[in-house]
Amino acid sequence: MMGGDLGPRVIIPAIAQALQKNSNLTFLLFGNQHQAIPLLQKYTLQNHPKIQFHHTEQVIDADISFSKAIRQSKNSSMRLALEAVKEGKAQGCVSGGNTGALMGLAKLLIAPLPNIERPALTSLIPAMNGKSTVMLDLGANIEVSDYQLQQFAEMGNLFAQVMLGLVYPRISLLNIGTEENKGTAQLQAVHQQLKNRQDLNYIGFIESDKLTSYLTDVIICDGYTGNIALKALEGAAKNIIALFKKEKADSNICRSTKRYLLKLIFYRYYRKLQEINPDRHNGATLLGLSKVVVKSHGGANSNAFCYAIDYAIQQIEGDIPSRIMQGLSQLE
Amino acid sequence: MMGGDLGPRVIIPAIAQALQKNSNLTFLLFGNQHQAIPLLQKYTLQNHPKIQFHHTEQVIDADISFSKAIRQSKNSSMRLALEAVKEGKAQGCVSGGNTGALMGLAKLLIAPLPNIERPALTSLIPAMNGKSTVMLDLGANIEVSDYQLQQFAEMGNLFAQVMLGLVYPRISLLNIGTEENKGTAQLQAVHQQLKNRQDLNYIGFIESDKLTSYLTDVIICDGYTGNIALKALEGAAKNIIALFKKEKADSNICRSTKRYLLKLIFYRYYRKLQEINPDRHNGATLLGLSKVVVKSHGGANSNAFCYAIDYAIQQIEGDIPSRIMQGLSQLE
Repeated sequence: MMGGDLGPRVIIPAIAQALQKNSNLTFLLFGNQHQAIPLLQKYTLQNHPKIQFHHTEQVIDADISFSKAIRQSKNSSMRLALEAVKEGKAQGCVSGGNTGALMGLAKLLIAPLPNIERPALTSLIPAMNGKSTVMLDLGANIEVSDYQLQQFAEMGNLFAQVMLGLVYPRISLLNIGTEENKGTAQLQAVHQQLKNRQDLNYIGFIESDKLTSYLTDVIICDGYTGNIALKALEGAAKNIIALFKKEKADSNICRSTKRYLLKLIFYRYYRKLQEINPDRHNGATLLGLSKVVVKSHGGANSNAFCYAIDYAIQQIEGDIPSRIMQGLSQLE
Repeated sequence: MMGGDLGPRVIIPAIAQALQKNSNLTFLLFGNQHQAIPLLQKYTLQNHPKIQFHHTEQVIDADISFSKAIRQSKNSSMRLALEAVKEGKAQGCVSGGNTGALMGLAKLLIAPLPNIERPALTSLIPAMNGKSTVMLDLGANIEVSDYQLQQFAEMGNLFAQVMLGLVYPRISLLNIGTEENKGTAQLQAVHQQLKNRQDLNYIGFIESDKLTSYLTDVIICDGYTGNIALKALEGAAKNIIALFKKEKADSNICRSTKRYLLKLIFYRYYRKLQEINPDRHNGATLLGLSKVVVKSHGGANSNAFCYAIDYAIQQIEGDIPSRIMQGLSQLE
């Protein structure tokens, strides 16, 4: 269940971690054996019964256009991983590679659910109270129609029900203000359409400074806006946590008399900050496909990559694609 | 130099603070005397030689459309403040009121600089190293033309030169990736146009997780994108600082043996976090007008409002409108 151009240095320790937590998992790995084997040895995963390694040297570059990526994709680790999912050899795919290529190939190889016009990149984002909020689209669709935004609301609604166990989850539309006259003509139109939906608990616009405030359960936006908002949030969180870690490192040179107390205090802070640590919420799923395909952050470390694996497992266990399909068919 | 629907409870203490720092300032205040006078008394500013108070009861509501706001604007505090600027009675206006109304009225009453198609909301945003980055547009123009984005780059360039004292400041375009094929068709087109400009130090796309990384000096975007990105950043910063402050308050109940050490440690943190405290960077100017008009955050406290006043003063002292005009005329 694994493809990725991210480099085995992150993926293999993440797999070791995932297997430690759940020894029932099976991994199909696609990548370059010259890079992977020393790492598999290091983590004592060589010839592991739950890992099948498929060697390929073909990789899709990070900075090429989608059409080039598709041409370049034959025998690439990403394509092979997706083909394994398509053929039922794996139940899901996790990749840290080129987002555009992953989405394009996934849509090419794995059927979207019936009537889904555009799958949407969907994540659980952290709320300050320790809970999570569903957000989509985070970058799959730069421009979307009114109808597609409504469909994102429908999919997000079902995703929140299954993944967060919510009944009648609150749904909001991301905008630059909460008043009805704010934002683009499209947002104003979709706002009216969603207000008229009895089947959705639509509560109105939300601004991007409230993403983590737990004022809503599902945040809907086009992929361009979602990407801008989420990266801004993640950047701020990462930077502030980096400041904090630097202080923590500095404190190691404090005298031993202070040490116990420092540890105590830092522990409290650290736990607080961990709640909004973007690593813990790594992983965006292409919601609307008939199989589970998860994109990990390009810059993820192995902890973060392990969270992306968890995210895929939760969706496979919750049978998200079927639940979405059932939910949508009841609408029609 | 002051109008605002924000409430005198924030503005009047901010003015007291500003006058303490610089006794040469003069303020024209527009608002409801029944609210203001008790506060002026509290801060011993009643009959202050540097404050002229103009009573009005008319206020522009926060949540009405622009056209309604204009109709409602006669004798409103905001309009009176802008008229004072127009007539030369004040050198600049600071307001915490309805952003749409402020921008609309400012454009109606105060001439834009020659050849400026659209004034843009412009702020200095904090970088993690303690420096600042110019960012525009933050919400004045939901949709813009390619030419207008280029003009934002020209204005941002001059603003960074004057306000930050930079020579040949680095200019970036906000996008959802740094590769040439990322983002909307408009961003790709403007990217090529800016690359061909010899007079601008355009360094390419920047992603929203790098807003505070000091990788650039000027960040250009349309007002919708800028608003989404900046609010996401501010929301994250505010939330994390709030977590921190809560911890700080909690610590007050710690035993006195710990107290000195806690203070020491918290002080270091606090100073670090202050560097990226959004309060310190409150204030967005409508760049491209012939006078200085600054919008303060609707939710600003008096410290933050005082920063918005400082921001206006810096621009008045730096004679930003004339410098922008001179710079642009040299381009043609």
